[in-house]
Amino acid sequence: MDPISLVGALLILIGVFVGALLKGVSPVAFFTVPAAFLIVVLPTFGAAFLGTTTSDAKNLPRLFKMMFRKGEGEDGDVVPTIVGLGERARRDGLLSLESELDQLEDPFLRKGLQMVVDGADPEIVEEVLDSEIRAMSSRHRQGAKMITSMGTYSPTFGIIGAVVGLIVTLGKLDNPSELGHGIAAAFIATFWGVFLANGIFLPWAAKLGRLSALEVARKRMLVEAVLGIQSGFNPRVLGDLVRSHLPPSRASSTAEPERSSA
Amino acid sequence: MDPISLVGALLILIGVFVGALLKGVSPVAFFTVPAAFLIVVLPTFGAAFLGTTTSDAKNLPRLFKMMFRKGEGEDGDVVPTIVGLGERARRDGLLSLESELDQLEDPFLRKGLQMVVDGADPEIVEEVLDSEIRAMSSRHRQGAKMITSMGTYSPTFGIIGAVVGLIVTLGKLDNPSELGHGIAAAFIATFWGVFLANGIFLPWAAKLGRLSALEVARKRMLVEAVLGIQSGFNPRVLGDLVRSHLPPSRASSTAEPERSSA
Amino acid sequence: MDPISLVGALLILIGVFVGALLKGVSPVAFFTVPAAFLIVVLPTFGAAFLGTTTSDAKNLPRLFKMMFRKGEGEDGDVVPTIVGLGERARRDGLLSLESELDQLEDPFLRKGLQMVVDGADPEIVEEVLDSEIRAMSSRHRQGAKMITSMGTYSPTFGIIGAVVGLIVTLGKLDNPSELGHGIAAAFIATFWGVFLANGIFLPWAAKLGRLSALEVARKRMLVEAVLGIQSGFNPRVLGDLVRSHLPPSRASSTAEPERSSA
Amino acid sequence: MDPISLVGALLILIGVFVGALLKGVSPVAFFTVPAAFLIVVLPTFGAAFLGTTTSDAKNLPRLFKMMFRKGEGEDGDVVPTIVGLGERARRDGLLSLESELDQLEDPFLRKGLQMVVDGADPEIVEEVLDSEIRAMSSRHRQGAKMITSMGTYSPTFGIIGAVVGLIVTLGKLDNPSELGHGIAAAFIATFWGVFLANGIFLPWAAKLGRLSALEVARKRMLVEAVLGIQSGFNPRVLGDLVRSHLPPSRASSTAEPERSSA
Amino acid sequence: MDPISLVGALLILIGVFVGALLKGVSPVAFFTVPAAFLIVVLPTFGAAFLGTTTSDAKNLPRLFKMMFRKGEGEDGDVVPTIVGLGERARRDGLLSLESELDQLEDPFLRKGLQMVVDGADPEIVEEVLDSEIRAMSSRHRQGAKMITSMGTYSPTFGIIGAVVGLIVTLGKLDNPSELGHGIAAAFIATFWGVFLANGIFLPWAAKLGRLSALEVARKRMLVEAVLGIQSGFNPRVLGDLVRSHLPPSRASSTAEPERSSA
Repeated sequence: MDPISLVGALLILIGVFVGALLKGVSPVAFFTVPAAFLIVVLPTFGAAFLGTTTSDAKNLPRLFKMMFRKGEGEDGDVVPTIVGLGERARRDGLLSLESELDQLEDPFLRKGLQMVVDGADPEIVEEVLDSEIRAMSSRHRQGAKMITSMGTYSPTFGIIGAVVGLIVTLGKLDNPSELGHGIAAAFIATFWGVFLANGIFLPWAAKLGRLSALEVARKRMLVEAVLGIQSGFNPRVLGDLVRSHLPPSRASSTAEPERSSA
Repeated sequence: MDPISLVGALLILIGVFVGALLKGVSPVAFFTVPAAFLIVVLPTFGAAFLGTTTSDAKNLPRLFKMMFRKGEGEDGDVVPTIVGLGERARRDGLLSLESELDQLEDPFLRKGLQMVVDGADPEIVEEVLDSEIRAMSSRHRQGAKMITSMGTYSPTFGIIGAVVGLIVTLGKLDNPSELGHGIAAAFIATFWGVFLANGIFLPWAAKLGRLSALEVARKRMLVEAVLGIQSGFNPRVLGDLVRSHLPPSRASSTAEPERSSA
Repeated sequence: MDPISLVGALLILIGVFVGALLKGVSPVAFFTVPAAFLIVVLPTFGAAFLGTTTSDAKNLPRLFKMMFRKGEGEDGDVVPTIVGLGERARRDGLLSLESELDQLEDPFLRKGLQMVVDGADPEIVEEVLDSEIRAMSSRHRQGAKMITSMGTYSPTFGIIGAVVGLIVTLGKLDNPSELGHGIAAAFIATFWGVFLANGIFLPWAAKLGRLSALEVARKRMLVEAVLGIQSGFNPRVLGDLVRSHLPPSRASSTAEPERSSA
Repeated sequence: MDPISLVGALLILIGVFVGALLKGVSPVAFFTVPAAFLIVVLPTFGAAFLGTTTSDAKNLPRLFKMMFRKGEGEDGDVVPTIVGLGERARRDGLLSLESELDQLEDPFLRKGLQMVVDGADPEIVEEVLDSEIRAMSSRHRQGAKMITSMGTYSPTFGIIGAVVGLIVTLGKLDNPSELGHGIAAAFIATFWGVFLANGIFLPWAAKLGRLSALEVARKRMLVEAVLGIQSGFNPRVLGDLVRSHLPPSRASSTAEPERSSA
Repeated sequence: MDPISLVGALLILIGVFVGALLKGVSPVAFFTVPAAFLIVVLPTFGAAFLGTTTSDAKNLPRLFKMMFRKGEGEDGDVVPTIVGLGERARRDGLLSLESELDQLEDPFLRKGLQMVVDGADPEIVEEVLDSEIRAMSSRHRQGAKMITSMGTYSPTFGIIGAVVGLIVTLGKLDNPSELGHGIAAAFIATFWGVFLANGIFLPWAAKLGRLSALEVARKRMLVEAVLGIQSGFNPRVLGDLVRSHLPPSRASSTAEPERSSA
């Protein structure tokens, strides 16, 4: 679990509910208006479901877990592996990589090198790996889109809840005390609509987008590495190529021993 | 019919109308202000029609039915077919595919292979199939655009309805009881504008976009498959290529027997 | 004139003005507040003019007429013409097309074939025709942008009108009856701002965009046809290529006789 | 100065200030609330400056003057010049253009032809001219972005001004007459925020974008002309190529004599 | 430190707080409602953190310092260096550049030339440098995205704060004096939400975007320079190429001596 997710969630909850307490609203009050909850939550999920397919909607639990996941692919751990594979391939030929495949953790790297070992043309290796990245990225985008759509639906259903509440309340305008309580209750739906969007759905969609960007970047780096190994690149050039995809801090921590040993 | 569409529609209707009932507004009330309905619904369709052409507008009923349609193209059923065609073509030559064409369900795949059998150049096969995909995708986009435009017009006409209602009501500010009822009635138009946009038009447009993306992805995969068959790709490579377009779950379910038999 | 434009305009006018009548506002009332009209309409055009050049602004009347124009280029009428030209060119050579040029209605197709007859290189034919399409498309986009900008300016000037009205009215808060009438009058500007945007400017801009997309698609098809004729494509392939740009309904109506005669 | 700019500015000023006068607000009133002015204008410029660099901000006066400038590059005046240069180059060789360079007004055309005369490779001529266009276009975009940002900041600072005004006023709710005046004064800030955005900043940014698009289009045409001259294109083809970038009206006015003399 | 940043920050602070003082609100008042602060600030950071990864969030202090940094890369200082390196390379061969590398301040230029000296293929030099630029640009974009997201979250949490305040206040509608103070306090949260977004977060994100664009443009120029040196371009052409990336004012100040000495 990514610690920043916990920090983020706590900051949101403390900010909003302790803030409300300081203002004089017991946080419990937000949960005692079931109609507000009903008008905001159900139609938000309903509209998102109506705009997608059954197999997309089934991904929802998996997408939820990703909200708290660590980003991967920014570490330079893969650099020595790639450089080692490149050295082996230059020394003993591409077929010698076969014996190394089982020790590779990353299935994408393994798949690419398997194709290289099988003797596939570089254009076909690139095409297969690229279309796998594109298909993955488009699945990710669809997930983020569904969650983003919840973040745009929920405040509008919050407005609907408020409008419904105001319609009820304004029908009895002659009782000012009841009027105030009615408008207050109407605003509970607005609260939930805006809160769910900005405290949950939109950050969740942003996290999905970020994780996807990191995974796509990592896989693009692996494609270049696989093609570089297949072309028999000098291991130092191969290291430069892989490190050029990494942030300077990570790249340099792996670069120095490599460069000095050259 | 895609079951999630029904779930989505029910969640929206239950959430909004049962929620309103709990608040104390009979759902019937929303239907008893014909002016609100008139000001929101007619101009929303009118503005969408004014911004399009007759032949686009005629698509409306067909587009409506698509709101409930299943997405297609994510299943791996086509993999064994493609691999089989590739094997046949390598064994017996491209012309041998002619006899297989009638058994193919997919007209796009059939059309592409017919061109291959007819001996068309690969560049021309790709150009014809690609421009068919582009034309289809641009027709789909136009449909989604028209529905999206309804989703942006309807809340604004809801505002117009509310403004008109407020103009009437504020003219008789001295009668507070009537004032409340007037404002409440004015808000009915706002309700319809926001509800139609977020409960119908925007999810509908999202569904159209999703179905289009799935169909485009499927057709792009078929283009690569047709070109791969024409180039005489190794059937295993052909399988890898097609599976690289599929989500991992579907791809693996079709991959194992293939890989193990290799 | 495109019939859907008339339908659209009527739906907007009936919806808004009959709806207002049902609410109890005489549509005449909207026209009796000249200040509202002045604050919304003049600055909307003014801001659009300030953001463009004299020669763009002179296009306004021509753009207005296009709001009601039919879309073109989706019919398959051009398919037999193209196939016929292709057959003639293969049979009698490219120069034989010279005699056909005068009978071609479409000036773009004529211009392209004239260049072919004149013996220009295919790359130059493509470059000249493509840059003509790009220049046309960018002129169209500029027109749609100007009208879209009116659709974004007009509601904001409607807000300015309301704010000015409220400033006047709130200065005399002690007279509640006058207050109501003042706020009602202030909302007339809001009405005009939102109505002009959503009832006229935005649909108008959408129509301009749609007509442009259809014309660009048609011209792109003609470029491919001209280049195909120049390359001496088989007429059947030429027909496939042209039809791949058309919607299935139109394409098939022209395809059958062609395919069966092949 | 572009006459439409004057027309636009006058329409905005007349519409808003005469409209306000008709409503009963003396335009002078808008200028008598210095706090409103202070809260809107200073932070709008401040936020734009904070988001940019010193050298960008120094461009502000130059950008202001461009709001009233004529668009250039849509006239066909350059066609005969290009065709003449092309004829000269074909007749007397590329070096003969050297003597013509001093008479060329356009520094971009002169620079391109100087490189041609100097014997630079076509790829390098294209690369240098293209990267000059890209750099210019990105400078223009930055200018338009800074002004657009003012157009988005100013209404939000208008809201801040209104909120501050309301906070003051609502603190003394027991005095209804003062309340009205307070809210009215609070709305002056809203007025300025929305007015400056839609009456000045956003049209200004649109004008900058339009001028940039015209200049980029003109320079792209000149790049194609320079490369065409260097490749020794037939002058008629050169004329076709240049005219394909122009609107039909301008293109035809220069086309006829050319075509008839061919 | 970029002086315009200080000017911008001062204009914002003076405008808003002196403006508020003139209106009659002591700026101190904004800081005396801890609940408003809590509801806006904590959840804004929380939502941004929830939508990102730990390593992104750790960049926050570094990103903050960049708000006040000068833009780099627009000066023409690098032109003579590049031209000198190009002359040296043509005269003494590419290996002679090795001795110059230590004197180069720019690590990116040094890295590129090191690869050239090491004898790497031009395609690989370009690929390594380009993917370094792309990786840097995507890291920058992620930083700007996180800050932009704060700028969109903060006004919405400001609305949540206002809604919570209104819920409290409207519960006791019978006490008009308390009502006013309650609504005023509720608006403090709105003030902070809108102020933090437009006075800090959005300008900050714009500055990050601007600095990134300048650095990317500078690095792209260096890539072209390195490749030009490797290809043995004429130093004058090299100068033209580098200057084509600079604004005219800077380019000309470095161009004249160069051109005149040619």
